[in-house]
Amino acid sequence: MTALDDRSVQPTVTSGPIKGSRKVYHEVTGPDAAQTLRVPHRRVELDNGSHIDLYDTSGPYTESSVDIDVHSGLARMREEWIRDREPVGGAVTQAAYAEAGIITPEMRYIAAREGMDPEFVRSEVAIGRAVIPANRCHPESEPMIIGKNFLVKVNANIGNSAVTSSVAEEVEKMVWASRWGADTIMDLSTGKRIHETREWIIRNSPVPVGTVPIYQALEKVDGDPAQLTWEIYRDTVIEQAEQGVDYMTVHAGVLLRYVPLTARRTTGIVSRGGSIMAAWCLAHHEESFLYTRFEELCEIFRRYDITFSLGDGLRPGSIADANDEAQFAELRTLGELTHIARAHGVQVMIEGPGHVPMHKIAENVRLEEELCGEAPFYTLGPLATDIAPGYDHITSAIGAAQIAWHGTAMLCYVTPKEHLGLPNRDDVKTGVVTYKLAAHSADLAKGHPRAQEWDDALSTARFEFRWQDQFHLALDPETAQAFHDETLPAEPAKTA
Amino acid sequence: MTALDDRSVQPTVTSGPIKGSRKVYHEVTGPDAAQTLRVPHRRVELDNGSHIDLYDTSGPYTESSVDIDVHSGLARMREEWIRDREPVGGAVTQAAYAEAGIITPEMRYIAAREGMDPEFVRSEVAIGRAVIPANRCHPESEPMIIGKNFLVKVNANIGNSAVTSSVAEEVEKMVWASRWGADTIMDLSTGKRIHETREWIIRNSPVPVGTVPIYQALEKVDGDPAQLTWEIYRDTVIEQAEQGVDYMTVHAGVLLRYVPLTARRTTGIVSRGGSIMAAWCLAHHEESFLYTRFEELCEIFRRYDITFSLGDGLRPGSIADANDEAQFAELRTLGELTHIARAHGVQVMIEGPGHVPMHKIAENVRLEEELCGEAPFYTLGPLATDIAPGYDHITSAIGAAQIAWHGTAMLCYVTPKEHLGLPNRDDVKTGVVTYKLAAHSADLAKGHPRAQEWDDALSTARFEFRWQDQFHLALDPETAQAFHDETLPAEPAKTA
Repeated sequence: MTALDDRSVQPTVTSGPIKGSRKVYHEVTGPDAAQTLRVPHRRVELDNGSHIDLYDTSGPYTESSVDIDVHSGLARMREEWIRDREPVGGAVTQAAYAEAGIITPEMRYIAAREGMDPEFVRSEVAIGRAVIPANRCHPESEPMIIGKNFLVKVNANIGNSAVTSSVAEEVEKMVWASRWGADTIMDLSTGKRIHETREWIIRNSPVPVGTVPIYQALEKVDGDPAQLTWEIYRDTVIEQAEQGVDYMTVHAGVLLRYVPLTARRTTGIVSRGGSIMAAWCLAHHEESFLYTRFEELCEIFRRYDITFSLGDGLRPGSIADANDEAQFAELRTLGELTHIARAHGVQVMIEGPGHVPMHKIAENVRLEEELCGEAPFYTLGPLATDIAPGYDHITSAIGAAQIAWHGTAMLCYVTPKEHLGLPNRDDVKTGVVTYKLAAHSADLAKGHPRAQEWDDALSTARFEFRWQDQFHLALDPETAQAFHDETLPAEPAKTA
Repeated sequence: MTALDDRSVQPTVTSGPIKGSRKVYHEVTGPDAAQTLRVPHRRVELDNGSHIDLYDTSGPYTESSVDIDVHSGLARMREEWIRDREPVGGAVTQAAYAEAGIITPEMRYIAAREGMDPEFVRSEVAIGRAVIPANRCHPESEPMIIGKNFLVKVNANIGNSAVTSSVAEEVEKMVWASRWGADTIMDLSTGKRIHETREWIIRNSPVPVGTVPIYQALEKVDGDPAQLTWEIYRDTVIEQAEQGVDYMTVHAGVLLRYVPLTARRTTGIVSRGGSIMAAWCLAHHEESFLYTRFEELCEIFRRYDITFSLGDGLRPGSIADANDEAQFAELRTLGELTHIARAHGVQVMIEGPGHVPMHKIAENVRLEEELCGEAPFYTLGPLATDIAPGYDHITSAIGAAQIAWHGTAMLCYVTPKEHLGLPNRDDVKTGVVTYKLAAHSADLAKGHPRAQEWDDALSTARFEFRWQDQFHLALDPETAQAFHDETLPAEPAKTA
């Protein structure tokens, strides 16, 4: 019996099209007819007879007539692709195939989603400037890419805690977040039934799933960091790898000698993974096992094609601590680890801050690119000020849009509840929509070839008073229409 | 009988301190003891025994025990200052005094608010890089300054329309907006009782009030732009000047020859004032009277010390139209008019867009400074993307924070209802708080000497789990605490 056979778990997931849109599939033929791909888009049909097809992260849940059975999980689209291909040089990672000059079906799928050439996708992955997080044990996922020369991506964190939320709620949060545009989700569960929750999420997730394995490892030692061992950690990683986790945050750059650098900070160490590893290093007065055993970790990641998300355990937790010695010391170590992982054919991205005033944002990207060989940067915000708890989705969207323009490839969302409490369903939606607009603002500023089409379609609808088209083209059609109807509810006002 | 004697109007205004703060006055002694100024601050007392005094725009309404009589209006603090001073070279404007080397009480008051030297305030006003909007007929206002070397300011638009809202509601919106940090308000009323609404607002407003006189002039000709004349416009300006309007938006840069430049735009002319003047020019096939009679206008503004806010009638209404020929042609004309106004001793600021993708923001500031002799820039947003109606307070905060960092001195807020409907009380608060955090982010990035104190105080409280201090230091303490209490309502959780 697997977790999904548990009939006491009955997730109710949101399904059906987004208002004013319908799911279409673009058929993409491959080298042979059997390899025809069906690539999903969100199509908005306009009142003037035209339509626009938008990037779509929502999976089968937004089909018009869909028969979702969460106990079975999604169709295993990638199963044959994975089964049919031979290792190259012993490796089965997208990076290894790319380096060998092979364009995988995942790369062709991505090229169609992004409107790019498949060969360009391959070459970006080959040099490590982009990653395709796609564990071989997560064949249900729709391939996507993270890299500065592609659309800026958004991650949404979900996960239960000791305090609240059930397995069913977390499954719905995953469906809900990807419905509004989350490109990946991270399951940060720390409460009960971590393994089962993750199984439910992965089997039903159309987007890549990330985790921070040290969280579950810590649960296994009853929350005492000093009791952690390499063996417990390694076994946790393998357990999660087998389930299909696509990328894992590893705080391998928190070295013993960097911990004292945080002593005089305003806000010390705020990363949970960073604190755990710092506590371990201090307790044992030894170098972190994540660092000393890093090559063994690479070997595991390589077998599944798990992507490293090298965590910034010493990221600043306040404006005062931005761009300090501790932060950049760790970044240099992450650069060193990037090159080791790549030598093993493993894909790598680098996590970034956090809290950074606007004038210090560009330096973060410049240093990350320089030290980490242009590995995709994946940042949390950053918040451009600390004075607005309750509005940190906005303080951080200001920083996120800018850092993405400078080159960050994926943004980790922040919800209005950041620093204050746990996000509910509305907060998840607000966080995702806020980050999608920040990401899109960066796509425009970077001149992504098709980004401005969307703005132009909406602005033209607005200028021509095609209200319904304006709503349907909105990132969040429901809210746009509701706000309109609040003051001008009459139907004629919308068609005038 | 004045408008305020009308007992059928019974505004209920929000009063009392902001949660966790109290009003304090810093006493500032002047050249003689009689000129002691009392400069308000919002003091947050912290649980660790220290306190922090924040810039305060809210007027007497946030005093602990305050007896507000909206029928009498606020105390006329500036009355004696205005009465006692002699003209210099025939002029009574802050610019004229500054140029003559005179430090007015307004300048001393501002210096105390901003933590700057009074002589620096004077010199910035003298060269026109900052303005002090302070009509001699609005002695109730608390002096404030708009300039790139001072704290970034935020304007909130209010005003009734043909569709909704009463005089009383607009008075409360003014009090409400300045409570949350609006540095100026613009009364954009277009419905009934425009004159009375404005009288109520100005007599009770602690912050400068701006208007767009062409809106009221158009009401006088029943909404037909072709019927507008210089005489009707001039009389409207004088009517508003006598009431005490501190700054006026004048779309004097919409020239006949620029109108065709908008023909091939995606969204034509979206500024209401711009459309009115373009329609007038086309109907008469004549140059705009705002342009041809500009020197007469300067003479009126000079008598009252009204500040010009030269309107960008051809601002882009979409990402597609940003930084185009029409926009920059008008900006060149605004530059020409700036120098004319200054020659008359009149203060000037310049309005800016609107809708601009991030990579085109810096050019707006650079050109404005170059063409308009560094007159303070006052921008609406700009929105960094068009795809998120319902979230345009956020799309525009992204642009606003950046343009303010580059040098914009005042930001005109955008509410979540932008493009969709009329803002209610909650929308006004959301708009103001969003813009305050954007402005503060820019203050940090520009290195304003005292800006980071606030972030540091809040971050330290957060790190030390002083929850009440964290709430009280927030831009919006009520929302911060409410969000916290939603998931962790127990009192121990806040003091742990």
